[in-house]
Amino acid sequence: MSSEVNSENNSCLKADFYQELMAIVDEAAVLASCSALLGWDEQTFMPPEGAVHRSNQLALLAGLHHEKSTNPRIGELLDAVEDSRIIHDQASPEAANVRELRRLYNRQTRLPRTLVEALARATSLAQQVWVSSRASADFASFRPHLETIIRLKREEASCLMHALEDSKSSHIPQSPFVSVYDPLLDDYEPGARNAALVTLFEGLRKDLVPLAAEISEAVRRHANGKSFRGHQDRTESPHSVLTREYPIDRQRVFVEMVAAAVGFDFRRGRLDVTAHPFCTGVGPGDIRITTRYDVRQFSDAFFGVLHEVGHGLYEQGLDPDRFGTPLGDAVSLGVHESQSRLWENAVGRSKAFWTYWFPLARQVFPQALHDVTLDQFHAAVNHVVPSLIRVQADEVTYNLHILIRFELERALLTGDLPVADLPSAWNAKYRETLGVVPSNDAEGCLQDIHWSAGLFGYFPTYTLGNLYAAQLFARADADLGGLDLAFARGEFAGLLGWLRENVHRHGKRYSPSALIERATATPLDHRPFIESLRRKYGELYGI
Amino acid sequence: MSSEVNSENNSCLKADFYQELMAIVDEAAVLASCSALLGWDEQTFMPPEGAVHRSNQLALLAGLHHEKSTNPRIGELLDAVEDSRIIHDQASPEAANVRELRRLYNRQTRLPRTLVEALARATSLAQQVWVSSRASADFASFRPHLETIIRLKREEASCLMHALEDSKSSHIPQSPFVSVYDPLLDDYEPGARNAALVTLFEGLRKDLVPLAAEISEAVRRHANGKSFRGHQDRTESPHSVLTREYPIDRQRVFVEMVAAAVGFDFRRGRLDVTAHPFCTGVGPGDIRITTRYDVRQFSDAFFGVLHEVGHGLYEQGLDPDRFGTPLGDAVSLGVHESQSRLWENAVGRSKAFWTYWFPLARQVFPQALHDVTLDQFHAAVNHVVPSLIRVQADEVTYNLHILIRFELERALLTGDLPVADLPSAWNAKYRETLGVVPSNDAEGCLQDIHWSAGLFGYFPTYTLGNLYAAQLFARADADLGGLDLAFARGEFAGLLGWLRENVHRHGKRYSPSALIERATATPLDHRPFIESLRRKYGELYGI
Repeated sequence: MSSEVNSENNSCLKADFYQELMAIVDEAAVLASCSALLGWDEQTFMPPEGAVHRSNQLALLAGLHHEKSTNPRIGELLDAVEDSRIIHDQASPEAANVRELRRLYNRQTRLPRTLVEALARATSLAQQVWVSSRASADFASFRPHLETIIRLKREEASCLMHALEDSKSSHIPQSPFVSVYDPLLDDYEPGARNAALVTLFEGLRKDLVPLAAEISEAVRRHANGKSFRGHQDRTESPHSVLTREYPIDRQRVFVEMVAAAVGFDFRRGRLDVTAHPFCTGVGPGDIRITTRYDVRQFSDAFFGVLHEVGHGLYEQGLDPDRFGTPLGDAVSLGVHESQSRLWENAVGRSKAFWTYWFPLARQVFPQALHDVTLDQFHAAVNHVVPSLIRVQADEVTYNLHILIRFELERALLTGDLPVADLPSAWNAKYRETLGVVPSNDAEGCLQDIHWSAGLFGYFPTYTLGNLYAAQLFARADADLGGLDLAFARGEFAGLLGWLRENVHRHGKRYSPSALIERATATPLDHRPFIESLRRKYGELYGI
Repeated sequence: MSSEVNSENNSCLKADFYQELMAIVDEAAVLASCSALLGWDEQTFMPPEGAVHRSNQLALLAGLHHEKSTNPRIGELLDAVEDSRIIHDQASPEAANVRELRRLYNRQTRLPRTLVEALARATSLAQQVWVSSRASADFASFRPHLETIIRLKREEASCLMHALEDSKSSHIPQSPFVSVYDPLLDDYEPGARNAALVTLFEGLRKDLVPLAAEISEAVRRHANGKSFRGHQDRTESPHSVLTREYPIDRQRVFVEMVAAAVGFDFRRGRLDVTAHPFCTGVGPGDIRITTRYDVRQFSDAFFGVLHEVGHGLYEQGLDPDRFGTPLGDAVSLGVHESQSRLWENAVGRSKAFWTYWFPLARQVFPQALHDVTLDQFHAAVNHVVPSLIRVQADEVTYNLHILIRFELERALLTGDLPVADLPSAWNAKYRETLGVVPSNDAEGCLQDIHWSAGLFGYFPTYTLGNLYAAQLFARADADLGGLDLAFARGEFAGLLGWLRENVHRHGKRYSPSALIERATATPLDHRPFIESLRRKYGELYGI
């Protein structure tokens, strides 16, 4: 009798500990969401002279957030609940929350404050230098900053090497960190490991390099054969219809119509204009995306918005009642990117999508599109050409840009590639992989902000996103009995419902790879992506 | 020698205490500024479904702010510096900061947490009830809530009655609180006291009631004599030209042009659209005002913006280096309102102002203004008619609405007026003072949100603002040798420079009454306000 009472009391106590833990992390999440709004405002509406005070506000909130999320009480509470019944069922929401909080807490507490501060200083400075180094295509001025950052990231990786072992929940399976790359990668894509990625990406490269060359060649031949006397009597190649004049007010109306039609809920979100498009979750019911409009670039805003809408749909699909806990949070950068790329490419560049939307686009943009057919337009939005700049790359060649960065950043971290040799290594990889060579480092190894911001292990999540997207889309298409018919009728609710059910609502309940395997009934594989390209470009060019 | 060292050490230590004090209050101010941005966003751009999370964010920030601003360390630091050399010169910035921080700290620490929470609950609930009570003109449903609030405000006043005495700096002169109204009033208008206001407002009433009647009668006679067949062949009274069609995009361009011309710096601020116009200081370099546009009400947006611009100019004129300390903060609600009313009325409704702007207005609104003369337009924007609703009242009758509320809220607090008798007392006062009677309580005692929000002692600051404004404007006009010529040339920098020098840059360095006396070389007096009306309406109607 007495032992039963004790055991029950103990159970109650553990439940209290769990509640206390949730309350602490909720406060930290609400603070972070205040920063999210301030950050959004900084990019959208803040008057120019408000910048200094804004950085004071963000610094204070970041400090308070750090204090809350490294509160030693979190460690005590985790210790207390990790050997309790609360997480006995490892598939339970509670167990998943505890597992993910432990993961984050160990990361944060394993890093000495001196290192965190040194990284903050180094990356803040390096990003400023990067802006001017890129502007003058001057790698030499950036080099010492990159060297410092790489040294500090190695130190970070070394501090985190055994972070997975600091837990009582030894029953939660996690592959150990082996490579210096692993703990960095794991920050963005929990559970992902260097060795597995090397294998996955090798398979992708083997299929993609020849396919990309084949498609590029077909596109080139096709374009040469199809140049036509178009708009204003200028000779135009097929894809250049997208650089005719698209009045910005009309672009805005059209893309908002499409965003709403695919399911972005404007009662729970907004679309605004910024220099660099992004999606930010301010909180449940408040998901904001941004874009930029160029009157002579239809694709920039249109596909940019569809991309951010994909991110936004994921955020809008998270469980609002789980806000502030891992279960209410996106699982990884890769899965986030899968949602944006799925809507941007698998949906937004499909023939079926434009079967419905192209007639409407012609009504909204009569000047630009009166002499263009659906087939021409569909080909134009799927134009492929090997290029130098990642963010401008098409769906086919995009991942080749990532494979190059993946190899280079691993070599930089291990020391196999000295920073001084980065420009020549970069240029050699571009020649070998894409057949193009940068004329200077601004369009070469200085083009991305990531490394200056200390983001090592981030690039591969873009390619993971593309692979996840293709695999998820193929499965949804099979489960729902063919999406083309629905798209051609302007119906997207079926696909969105499938993604909500299989991806969005789970938050961090499963690891990214487990989530994908659970949703598609097969482990991650690069072939659905290759197949999707073969199918589309086969139809377009008969290859 | 040894005593000198000690004294020097002691001095250094005290300076450290002062710095520590400033650092704590700066953090509290930065936190409050985060809330300001979240509040602004809530009114402007937040998607509807973001409301629940926004209230969670604001509640957390308010809690953190309260924690910081009631930190007992503030009390220790104040004790330490209050008898030190740092504030030896009572006119020094340091002495003013210490005086004001003591004032705030004593207020906050004198109020028991239970009372603060009870007031927060009661006013939150009462505001919700007020919305529906006003909608159905049902005072009975609001009455018990108002009774609760009055009981709690009496309790608050009683807690604060001796708050001024908790300081070592007995050398800082402050009139004691005598009436229950004093500590409440002092929250909005530091140093203002019930007894002095009664005297001031009695003088105002004696002159204003007959003058308002005289002007209203002159306006009525003039309007009857001047009805003319105007726009679209409708018979129009002179002031109804302001309700013709003013396209909203043109209103926006015109009012932004005027706002910039009078000195509102759009690099350090914004103008957006909200249901209820306001001005909010997010921080130095970031002052935001809002308005609403009605296509058939030129005055709403135009004078609304000039009003908020006046608030905004004050905020933009505060010393950015003093942000977070009392010296960098507006001195009182009354002085804030003086700035808005000065630009709205003394500037924006003057003949000289429209001498410059009316020709431009005619170009921007050719349809509405092609058959209107400068004199007709100037008369229209100075239309006077006794009315029921305070926020729609003209410059002449506005203060009569305030005098009524001032008397009633004091009687409610002392208990001389039972809440149940408020509607009849309200209606009797309106009949007696303005000659109009509400047909129901929605256009009577339920029209304002203030009492439901616990804002007792707030209304008189509106009239103080109007009196300050007239006195400041008269003095600036004398100092600068006649502002009419400058206004007629579209020049406003002279007036703004005078206000910056004599009002804005001082923050809370002087009490409101000392500030006004210092700027105008005379104590506050209601006569400059009366004289400004006599002059304007004398010119308009020969009275």
